[in-house]
Amino acid sequence: MTQNSAQTGTLYIISAPSGAGKSSLIKAYLNLSDNHPTKVSISHTTRAPRPGEQHGEHYYFVDKAEFEVMISRDDFVEHAQVYENYYGTSRQAIEGNLAAGIDIFLDIDWQGAQQVRAKMPSAKSIFILPPSLTELENRLFQRGQDSPETIQKRMLKAKSEISHYSEYDYLIINDNFEQSLFELRCIIQTERLTLDKQSQQHHALLESLLK
Amino acid sequence: MTQNSAQTGTLYIISAPSGAGKSSLIKAYLNLSDNHPTKVSISHTTRAPRPGEQHGEHYYFVDKAEFEVMISRDDFVEHAQVYENYYGTSRQAIEGNLAAGIDIFLDIDWQGAQQVRAKMPSAKSIFILPPSLTELENRLFQRGQDSPETIQKRMLKAKSEISHYSEYDYLIINDNFEQSLFELRCIIQTERLTLDKQSQQHHALLESLLK
Repeated sequence: MTQNSAQTGTLYIISAPSGAGKSSLIKAYLNLSDNHPTKVSISHTTRAPRPGEQHGEHYYFVDKAEFEVMISRDDFVEHAQVYENYYGTSRQAIEGNLAAGIDIFLDIDWQGAQQVRAKMPSAKSIFILPPSLTELENRLFQRGQDSPETIQKRMLKAKSEISHYSEYDYLIINDNFEQSLFELRCIIQTERLTLDKQSQQHHALLESLLK
Repeated sequence: MTQNSAQTGTLYIISAPSGAGKSSLIKAYLNLSDNHPTKVSISHTTRAPRPGEQHGEHYYFVDKAEFEVMISRDDFVEHAQVYENYYGTSRQAIEGNLAAGIDIFLDIDWQGAQQVRAKMPSAKSIFILPPSLTELENRLFQRGQDSPETIQKRMLKAKSEISHYSEYDYLIINDNFEQSLFELRCIIQTERLTLDKQSQQHHALLESLLK
């Protein structure tokens, strides 16, 4: 087979209500032995590191002044202020990796997703849904972390997030974890089969076939 | 899980030069135990049945007058005349199946593909390529059916077909059969995850999640 070049990577926006299984799916995909090169984007934040959090691994920790300079330079593909802290995804954290053929997962909510779509229209977006509200509530209870009042607040937030599902390219209904993981793999595999991406990778082969 | 409706099926145009492995891939996909409901479209033709060919199974055998009436009624999504015989794919062979949630494979060449894209823009098209011209030639020799002269003619025809690869949505480089089959599965699975298709299937669930 003729020598291959690399395809550029794809930016995947992945959103879901809390309890839909997004984090587990992302983790399982990253642990597959035969996945394509993939990284989860690391965000910038102005909040203080929690015990065990490493700069450049969990977040890039910056102060408020630096974050605001980055906003003014249009360094972020999405950012938000939550209470007194900023959170954002820098272009730098994405574009080098995409150019190197690495797919990037952006684990963000619908508000971040709207900003990213506007700035990077080639991004593909995936929304993960629970099989029912009852199941979502069960999963939040089973975590055993929250009081019933907190769970009711999470349910309201989940419904608000769900109300934006129709802004996404793909929907995964996470009823069966292995099936959902297969579906996530397929979306990523299929993007790598598009004419555009295959022409990048198999440029030399395609030329040789036409000789 | 809330009761599902059916998704409509998708029309897949599948083209390839002779020897790329298209027929084996289609056959292997149809034989998978967990494929989505799929049929290969049955063409109309004016040529005489060969021994063993059944009307409605291998082809719909019609006479020239009937075929020409069908052309005049715009019954075909693609048709061609090869020497004195007509071949074509009728809308009727496709549209009922798509509405019933069945994916349809159209095994046609680049000329048919162009006609179908113009008439059914929602069709997805897949082009299957060999890993090299040498491998393509080896495969044609290994069939043991043809003289070297016939193989040279087939190679010229193959190169002419290959020259249209860039008109297709997806390229599969058939170097490893199992990998190519996985890729075909992924394309079909991914189409069924699009917002449009999932909204059809999970209409009731999506409504219930927003209550």
